Amino acid sequence: MSVAIELRQKQGPYQFECVNAAGKSCVIDGPTSIGGGEDGLRPMELVLMGLAGCSTFDVINILRKQRQEIQDLRVKAEGDRADTEPKVYTKIRLVFEAVGQVDPVKLKKAVDLSMEKYCSVSAMLGKTAEITWESKVVEA
Amino acid sequence: MSVAIELRQKQGPYQFECVNAAGKSCVIDGPTSIGGGEDGLRPMELVLMGLAGCSTFDVINILRKQRQEIQDLRVKAEGDRADTEPKVYTKIRLVFEAVGQVDPVKLKKAVDLSMEKYCSVSAMLGKTAEITWESKVVEA
Repeated sequence: MSVAIELRQKQGPYQFECVNAAGKSCVIDGPTSIGGGEDGLRPMELVLMGLAGCSTFDVINILRKQRQEIQDLRVKAEGDRADTEPKVYTKIRLVFEAVGQVDPVKLKKAVDLSMEKYCSVSAMLGKTAEITWESKVVEA
Repeated sequence: MSVAIELRQKQGPYQFECVNAAGKSCVIDGPTSIGGGEDGLRPMELVLMGLAGCSTFDVINILRKQRQEIQDLRVKAEGDRADTEPKVYTKIRLVFEAVGQVDPVKLKKAVDLSMEKYCSVSAMLGKTAEITWESKVVEA
């Protein structure tokens, strides 16, 4: 199974449109400190979004199979970067907050299963970063 | 230095808006095979976009310091995934195509320097995937 994407320069030296095979896209841009326009996502943010997204899809998929009724799911991710180049993520924290008729034990198990077994991005970033997570069922 | 992002459910079980601290965002969605709407980027695409973007920013930054005049830069990335869970990237290929008054040797050196020294995403994914790259100066 292979994945292909492309970057096309938009405006200014660092602003690019990142496009997938289906034509869906997002915009990245660099910081003003190097001449960027700050008008887009940063590459390291995309990586963190990829991690949070990958595990979120697993969690929803697992809970749907268990007929848990999630009304809403909010996921926060925070990553600490190394001080010297290459500034990899050294620590990443994820918080999953579910709203709805969801058993907190099932939610926790789904998140554990994703982070420890299914999530491809977690398996890759976990080689460099210590990844921790928590989950809770919250009020809407 | 820390990076924070958030995922907010939009529509359907898998469609989320991924938002950074400055409020910039992109949309992700899952495949129809698990009940998704296919109306957004996939998490593993975001990771590949993060890699291509991170190295592209390095390359542009280095070439700008060397007063190379890039008119346009197109970057393609392709990743092969493992057959079994977690389906990590096992091989990634990047192609950098520059248009403009660019010395191909300086372009190659800039790409090498990014991939081998500066690019944080390359350093992380390189633990799991064999990453290869090429660069060329092309006609507009």
